[in-house]
Amino acid sequence: MQDREADRLVAAAQDGDARSLARLISIVERGETDIRAVMRAAAPHAGGARVIGLTGSPGVGKSTVTDRLVRAFRDQGHRVAVLAVDPTSPFTGGALLGDRVRMSAHATDPGVFIRSMASRGHLGGLSQAAPAALRVLDAAGFGVVCVETVGVGQAEVEIAGLADSTLVVMAPGLGDSVQTAKAGILEIADIFVVNKSDRPGAHEVVRDLRAMLALANYEGAWKPPIVSASAATGDGIEELTGKLDAHWEWLGSSGVRTERRVARARGEVAAIAVAEIRRRIGGAPERRLDDLAAQVASGKLDPYSAADDLLA
Amino acid sequence: MQDREADRLVAAAQDGDARSLARLISIVERGETDIRAVMRAAAPHAGGARVIGLTGSPGVGKSTVTDRLVRAFRDQGHRVAVLAVDPTSPFTGGALLGDRVRMSAHATDPGVFIRSMASRGHLGGLSQAAPAALRVLDAAGFGVVCVETVGVGQAEVEIAGLADSTLVVMAPGLGDSVQTAKAGILEIADIFVVNKSDRPGAHEVVRDLRAMLALANYEGAWKPPIVSASAATGDGIEELTGKLDAHWEWLGSSGVRTERRVARARGEVAAIAVAEIRRRIGGAPERRLDDLAAQVASGKLDPYSAADDLLA
Repeated sequence: MQDREADRLVAAAQDGDARSLARLISIVERGETDIRAVMRAAAPHAGGARVIGLTGSPGVGKSTVTDRLVRAFRDQGHRVAVLAVDPTSPFTGGALLGDRVRMSAHATDPGVFIRSMASRGHLGGLSQAAPAALRVLDAAGFGVVCVETVGVGQAEVEIAGLADSTLVVMAPGLGDSVQTAKAGILEIADIFVVNKSDRPGAHEVVRDLRAMLALANYEGAWKPPIVSASAATGDGIEELTGKLDAHWEWLGSSGVRTERRVARARGEVAAIAVAEIRRRIGGAPERRLDDLAAQVASGKLDPYSAADDLLA
Repeated sequence: MQDREADRLVAAAQDGDARSLARLISIVERGETDIRAVMRAAAPHAGGARVIGLTGSPGVGKSTVTDRLVRAFRDQGHRVAVLAVDPTSPFTGGALLGDRVRMSAHATDPGVFIRSMASRGHLGGLSQAAPAALRVLDAAGFGVVCVETVGVGQAEVEIAGLADSTLVVMAPGLGDSVQTAKAGILEIADIFVVNKSDRPGAHEVVRDLRAMLALANYEGAWKPPIVSASAATGDGIEELTGKLDAHWEWLGSSGVRTERRVARARGEVAAIAVAEIRRRIGGAPERRLDDLAAQVASGKLDPYSAADDLLA
């Protein structure tokens, strides 16, 4: 793709042309060589979007919370994009069933763009396609971009790296949710949302979260508030958008917003550089790697010595 | 650490010295430079262990299933190790609460070794510490090593890369479990375990799984069986160990066992090589990366051009 064509697509996306936007996202999602032209075209126009990350275990109601936020930001006059990153395999390919349903709810609103994206195989994770898609949506002029992902661990940490504000969504009745979710979420959550607040056990989730937060040391930094909400009825959503606005202001006044965005770019550049090196390793010396792997598998060689050999 | 000291620790671990083993695991977990000596010492002794991976969403009862397997393999006379990989952050650090309880159940049995391990930050994931720990346990002479991890997506796929046999554990009553779990599990599961089979909805989980499997094409390959079990009562565990044995035999007769182990070694070597390159990128040209990241964050440069610049 020529730079001129990429520029044309970005301009069309800015004018609200959903097909051009979808085409740009497809290019970055497939990781084609055209991605370079798209990224070059997007770069000068990006930086205006407010990125909100939503994460949490399956079943907590992330999609419903996202939908409420979409409506709230639409009411404020923003164009809003949703990027739903699924831990989907090449085998099942494509979006989860639920997303089809969700898209139809906003199908008639040209100010809303919803896109599901598969998180790529082994070591790519969110790290390559999602930041690039985010940059495209940003360049296309969306005021708010919600990035939603499922899962504990890796995906949560990575989404926090992409977002200006990260919401960790929890709900009662998911067994060991707080205990399990404990892992990693304290450092990534800017706001906790305890969804399904009308269900039994919601108070206990809030109480457990409070107890966990009491152990943490947030001196001088942002202390994550806990918002009880019922996305199904809309209860607590106004409080949530209020907390989001407060966090956004804090990000600006503290200088953390710029820090985070530079850190995000740093991670992005490093990931692309590493992927390029990985591509080189996986390319030419493929047979050498096979040979070394066979030696490691049979116990003749240890993997570190093999890696040294590969890099030599 | 000198090679002689690493050899001594491995020999002591083979003789059942849990403290030497714990020290070896700590070295590989912390990723210290001593890891190289440990890996060299372990390499000639590894290859004998049968590695069983268990994965599934929080709350499905993975730990209880693992405990049942530990008992079953102990009854067969094997030494058994459990490596529980948690998506734990540096902030919370260490094992989930539940694991403390679990360890005590086998505390008096010198033939059982249980260790929790935090999955490392951003891009390390399972890919570095867990395979190395596995190799140490293998070299220490455990006949069976169970690797247990929580989560959807990344962690599941990675655990399948480590294990000879991968169990995907599911349970009724976890909301969208089958639908969500759909993502990625079809290609990694060697055996599906529907745990909590006495609970309402268990039949539906089995039915949904069957429907999914019916769509897949397993011609000539292993077709994953579905085992209904109640790990709490022990129901279905005998069937499960039977299916595990059948899969183990199939792995041997089909040649897939060797294939998988070579593939595992290949991934391990490549990950170490990439980590080494990442270390170099993160090292010397750190200020260059900061500078490039700032330019990307401000829209002056796109991340691909920045990565090219970094690698040049």
